[in-house]
Amino acid sequence: MERLVYLDNAATTPVRGEVLEAMLPYFREKFGNASSVYSLGRESKKALEEARETIASYFGAKKDEIFFTSCGSESDNWAIRGIAYANKNKGKHIITTSIEHHAVLHTCQQLEKEGFEVTYLPVDKYGVVELETLKNAVKDDTILITVMMANNEIGTIEPIKEIGAFAKEKGIVFHTDAVQAAGHIKIDVNDMNIDLMSVSGHKLGAQKGVGVLYIRKGTRIERFMQGGAQERNMRAGTENIPAIVGLAKAVEISCSSVEEENERLTALRDKLIDGILEKIPYSHLNGHRTQRLPGNCNISFDFVEGESILMLLDMKGICASSGSACTSGSLDPSHVLLATGLKHEQAHGSIRFTLGYQNTEEDVEAVLKELPPIIERLRSMSPLYDEFMKKGE
Amino acid sequence: MERLVYLDNAATTPVRGEVLEAMLPYFREKFGNASSVYSLGRESKKALEEARETIASYFGAKKDEIFFTSCGSESDNWAIRGIAYANKNKGKHIITTSIEHHAVLHTCQQLEKEGFEVTYLPVDKYGVVELETLKNAVKDDTILITVMMANNEIGTIEPIKEIGAFAKEKGIVFHTDAVQAAGHIKIDVNDMNIDLMSVSGHKLGAQKGVGVLYIRKGTRIERFMQGGAQERNMRAGTENIPAIVGLAKAVEISCSSVEEENERLTALRDKLIDGILEKIPYSHLNGHRTQRLPGNCNISFDFVEGESILMLLDMKGICASSGSACTSGSLDPSHVLLATGLKHEQAHGSIRFTLGYQNTEEDVEAVLKELPPIIERLRSMSPLYDEFMKKGE
Repeated sequence: MERLVYLDNAATTPVRGEVLEAMLPYFREKFGNASSVYSLGRESKKALEEARETIASYFGAKKDEIFFTSCGSESDNWAIRGIAYANKNKGKHIITTSIEHHAVLHTCQQLEKEGFEVTYLPVDKYGVVELETLKNAVKDDTILITVMMANNEIGTIEPIKEIGAFAKEKGIVFHTDAVQAAGHIKIDVNDMNIDLMSVSGHKLGAQKGVGVLYIRKGTRIERFMQGGAQERNMRAGTENIPAIVGLAKAVEISCSSVEEENERLTALRDKLIDGILEKIPYSHLNGHRTQRLPGNCNISFDFVEGESILMLLDMKGICASSGSACTSGSLDPSHVLLATGLKHEQAHGSIRFTLGYQNTEEDVEAVLKELPPIIERLRSMSPLYDEFMKKGE
Repeated sequence: MERLVYLDNAATTPVRGEVLEAMLPYFREKFGNASSVYSLGRESKKALEEARETIASYFGAKKDEIFFTSCGSESDNWAIRGIAYANKNKGKHIITTSIEHHAVLHTCQQLEKEGFEVTYLPVDKYGVVELETLKNAVKDDTILITVMMANNEIGTIEPIKEIGAFAKEKGIVFHTDAVQAAGHIKIDVNDMNIDLMSVSGHKLGAQKGVGVLYIRKGTRIERFMQGGAQERNMRAGTENIPAIVGLAKAVEISCSSVEEENERLTALRDKLIDGILEKIPYSHLNGHRTQRLPGNCNISFDFVEGESILMLLDMKGICASSGSACTSGSLDPSHVLLATGLKHEQAHGSIRFTLGYQNTEEDVEAVLKELPPIIERLRSMSPLYDEFMKKGE
């Protein structure tokens, strides 16, 4: 088989070499429970607090505002339910968008069953939430606005700073799912007026199974996990020190080089987008042309099925995705693409390539070489395409 | 400093060498998201399902009854809340014990705030739940019995098989927190009539941040974490493949050698218990003499403070614990020791040594050498001891 061309970094990333190296001593040598009082335990506690400090510093947060969780989904669940339950006497209305990750959407739907009211904002054809629409959705009893920083499928970056400023002005708590954005674009929780922010380790070169919830000091929020007094009595469960130490290292590497890497990936991404649109007829970019994550390329190919493209790409050693990994296996078309106005068949014919720290020009060239004949081959077997071409003649 | 004598394996264990070795390929090489459709993703999926199969086989469970979580605490939270919410129309009464881990107790307390009723069963002086007391506590609307398999502080093993048989007869769902028991004593979910069982990775030589909830097929339970369709749509969040692969290896090693290791540790434990009780006057064993975890030794020393003992042991390179690690930092005496009838000052003067796979006779000897002078020294500074000795004269 050919060299692996991994272009699904929004699904997960390989753990960075420096990250694994930082983690290794914490499995078998410095393995103490951070709650234990002897030296071995205090050493773990120290590593935990240093990791917290490092992560806080790269997001403009304070150390005590960083809480470790088991993943981005847990962070989303905790943020939304925690705010809802802690503020239910104040109000029961939540505003979110129709293109959030399922960890947000399904949590909101669960809260609706429990008597909360949720507004799912529409987005424009680029997947952008319009500030005016959001402003009009606010009610007297709105307790939470939760809008993702950047979309996981189409890469659209939302106007988080403007939403944050508005939420602050209205005194409404503002949460953002930054799982796809953290480490990939510059984030400052104060500049953006973010009250809560979800981050996932494995989207930026750390291990799976570790995440962060940033909670602004003074925010009224309930616990999600009951039990021990870990994380200042806010999140029970023995702290996963190796994964947390690795996460801090991954944040450090990603965030300290975010501008150069952003520039590098944007150039690769644009080469990929332009190359595909130029070489393959009846292909359309999903999401916004410039207001998008540096590594995201999501394209619809008329007359073909995304799953078939993926299989043929896989045979060429190229890893890509149709929709998000979390919903694969489901036959429903992407709720994100539908929200941007795509028809079912267009949504089904969409492929996402997401570039990461390890990708190079060579990877982009591999796609530009292998993809056109794949699309051509699939279209040659497509009755829809056949019909369309006959009409055109 | 001396060689480290780690005797706090109930708090956490070092990752076994074979476990780390099994995990390593999944960080940077086989790093795919198990939900992805290409080869790299399918390889992760395969590893995930093999791990599930392995773990199921050692507990007499079916593969599809094993669900991966982020820790034992999450498993407890999910089990108890999931059953409570799914069955609330049937009843709102839950039975547990007064010596459960806080992940169970605090979850039950949270449910009480939400309108559920919880009975906290007392225990006898050995920490054993009496079956008759449990039977008498059952009401028409009892929906769940949750009793730990073995206590984390005093190591007492509860009559799980009898409780399971009774719960089955009554048609009440039975959950057991087996975090301290799994891998240390033989468990068969069918033989013991267990409907739900919590397991934690880092208590048996796997990484922190991974656990299992066993859920018997057909059990009505709600999700705890909303989001993606992972774990057969029951637990959202990208699966932590390295940790899960490691957990399966740790379960395999621990469970396949559980009988020999049980025998080996019981001998070490008894040598430790007998040695301490013989060498140190006014010391008392907590928990049951024989119906206890093979690695657990918990002893109260009259006239001294546990924290001071720990500090002096730490200076000799010996790691032990007073109460559970999860509650350290709190000045409250152990709720478990109080439930067995100890007075506050006795509870405060208790030390737990917990032996694990890596411990040897040499470790036991180190304690038997270092502990007596430490207790003597502390007592020589204790006004209570001074008073007591004067009375005795």
